[in-house]
Amino acid sequence: MTTENYAGLQSVIWHDDKLDLLDQRLLPEEIVYLPLVTQEDVWEAIRHLKVRGAPAIGISAAYGVVLGSRDAGSAEDWLADVRKAAEYLATSRPTAVNLFWALDRMKARAEALASEGHSLEALKEALLIEAIAIQSEDEETNRLIGEHALSLFQDDIGVLTHCNAGGLATAKYGTALAPFYLAKERGMNIRVFADETRPVLQGARLTAFELQQAGVDVTLICDNMAGHVMSKGWVNAVIVGTDRVAANGDVANKIGTYSVAVLAKAHGIPFYVACPLSTIDLNTPTGAEIPIEERNAEEITEGFGKRTAPQGVKVYNPAFDITPNEYVTAIITEKGIIEAPFDVNLKKLFEQ
Amino acid sequence: MTTENYAGLQSVIWHDDKLDLLDQRLLPEEIVYLPLVTQEDVWEAIRHLKVRGAPAIGISAAYGVVLGSRDAGSAEDWLADVRKAAEYLATSRPTAVNLFWALDRMKARAEALASEGHSLEALKEALLIEAIAIQSEDEETNRLIGEHALSLFQDDIGVLTHCNAGGLATAKYGTALAPFYLAKERGMNIRVFADETRPVLQGARLTAFELQQAGVDVTLICDNMAGHVMSKGWVNAVIVGTDRVAANGDVANKIGTYSVAVLAKAHGIPFYVACPLSTIDLNTPTGAEIPIEERNAEEITEGFGKRTAPQGVKVYNPAFDITPNEYVTAIITEKGIIEAPFDVNLKKLFEQ
Repeated sequence: MTTENYAGLQSVIWHDDKLDLLDQRLLPEEIVYLPLVTQEDVWEAIRHLKVRGAPAIGISAAYGVVLGSRDAGSAEDWLADVRKAAEYLATSRPTAVNLFWALDRMKARAEALASEGHSLEALKEALLIEAIAIQSEDEETNRLIGEHALSLFQDDIGVLTHCNAGGLATAKYGTALAPFYLAKERGMNIRVFADETRPVLQGARLTAFELQQAGVDVTLICDNMAGHVMSKGWVNAVIVGTDRVAANGDVANKIGTYSVAVLAKAHGIPFYVACPLSTIDLNTPTGAEIPIEERNAEEITEGFGKRTAPQGVKVYNPAFDITPNEYVTAIITEKGIIEAPFDVNLKKLFEQ
Repeated sequence: MTTENYAGLQSVIWHDDKLDLLDQRLLPEEIVYLPLVTQEDVWEAIRHLKVRGAPAIGISAAYGVVLGSRDAGSAEDWLADVRKAAEYLATSRPTAVNLFWALDRMKARAEALASEGHSLEALKEALLIEAIAIQSEDEETNRLIGEHALSLFQDDIGVLTHCNAGGLATAKYGTALAPFYLAKERGMNIRVFADETRPVLQGARLTAFELQQAGVDVTLICDNMAGHVMSKGWVNAVIVGTDRVAANGDVANKIGTYSVAVLAKAHGIPFYVACPLSTIDLNTPTGAEIPIEERNAEEITEGFGKRTAPQGVKVYNPAFDITPNEYVTAIITEKGIIEAPFDVNLKKLFEQ
């Protein structure tokens, strides 16, 4: 991997026998790395949202298992400590699928290692290597997504993105933001427009922040300016992440994504979705089967620490929307670029 | 005029020989009417944005001239006081065209009255009647706009609006919001979706507020939810106000209007623009000739007393955008409903 030039902030860094974790609650105002030295530190960081993003949470938890078992005095104690750490860390955020996946993987690895009869030091070393592997694999997945995405972009273009599918949520690079980091590493100039993404402002607080930190040319706009900047001819492509892709290529993503997709189509601008294969769910036939979570009115009416709408006003606050496959130019995965017909081509991808 | 049932808040009320002015800076948290009894009170209220909206400012200034001249002891002093008050009030907000128009009209009326040799009491009474006429004419214009707009709507539909073209900015009714007040007076049920309208949130702070006050069924959404609610089939029409209509029917309005218009067209939803004739400028050939003011980055990065984006991030903050005439289903004025071809039909309107 050639990541020496990565200019982005990493949210999770294993360094000097401890986990340095970027406290995302303080962004964008302060950049503070918390040194986590015990499994309790990791539990607390996950619980209190200092780390966010499914991959970043899974990686942190994997290192948490390492921290929770490193003081064991015998191979037996070590395996018991690994199991206890995995069980304990699973309680930090009960709905995070990626968290459980990472903990199960660490536990399975420890059990396999224990059955092979290594020395205690070798066991500890090998388990750390497993956590590092989880992180490296996520990084590699994102780098590949970025490579494929970048093959669709040229130097000196403008690209609009919505919400945050960035490096802060992952080991490195992110998904939708990966091509921008790779372009930066290679001296290409891509001008990014970041929708602020109301109500929670992930675009303003995270995307604009992490791209700015990396020296990428990023301009923050309000969501309702997307059509206007497209009409100006400043946007050559749109790229977003996704929470789930259905078998027919319908895409669930942060509220506002659908509006951006319709605007892109009206302006003849390609609309790309970047995601790892793990986000594509062939068991969900279409977007109609994806439930749309509705969130609290207060996110809209007092999202800035100050009430900005009348008391008692009726509010509709869906967290996500569905972009039908007809608006999707291509889905970009670590295994390559998928185009329509998505039902056929997504199936093929998994059969490879 | 049948306005007894008007359920909206009025921003400017002449009552008991004083001007009761709704302090719009305190909305939506507090409803406070300021009693203005001197021309200085009116100057201060305009200067410090307690009153906003071109018509409401003009009306307030007209009453300010009445207040500034009512203590005169002779017809000569009275005319001098009127002239001084008009000159003084014109300095309250140097770029407000409607303000100058109202002050000029009051001054001209006073001069005509003075030349007719009325008693001092009759002069004062007639000038008050002129201020009331300015307010009544604005109200009547808006009511007619509302009537025409309502003729396009049916009972039990959903209508989306952007920004605030409401009663608070005018004598009563507003422009784009006028049909909602009339529908309410007549027992019709229209479900209004109000875009919050970043960055300054006029939709959340004013539109949602004034419609809620009037008992209109209003739901607040973020700007990026407009496409989603349209895709749900909840929106049967869009109606917005405008700052200027060009001779070809291109429409300048609050940033985000263009995105809404494109989304409406993509969903087969009519897009209406409501405005008085005075907003149509036949001397502006197309929208391309309308300059787009760019505003401070801080409106986006720290608009609510709290920083929500990284320091030093590049921001694009246009105050307005242009909606080309091809997206406009009709322009609704006090003289009727204008459809394409707009260049021909707008010209005809002024030739009538």
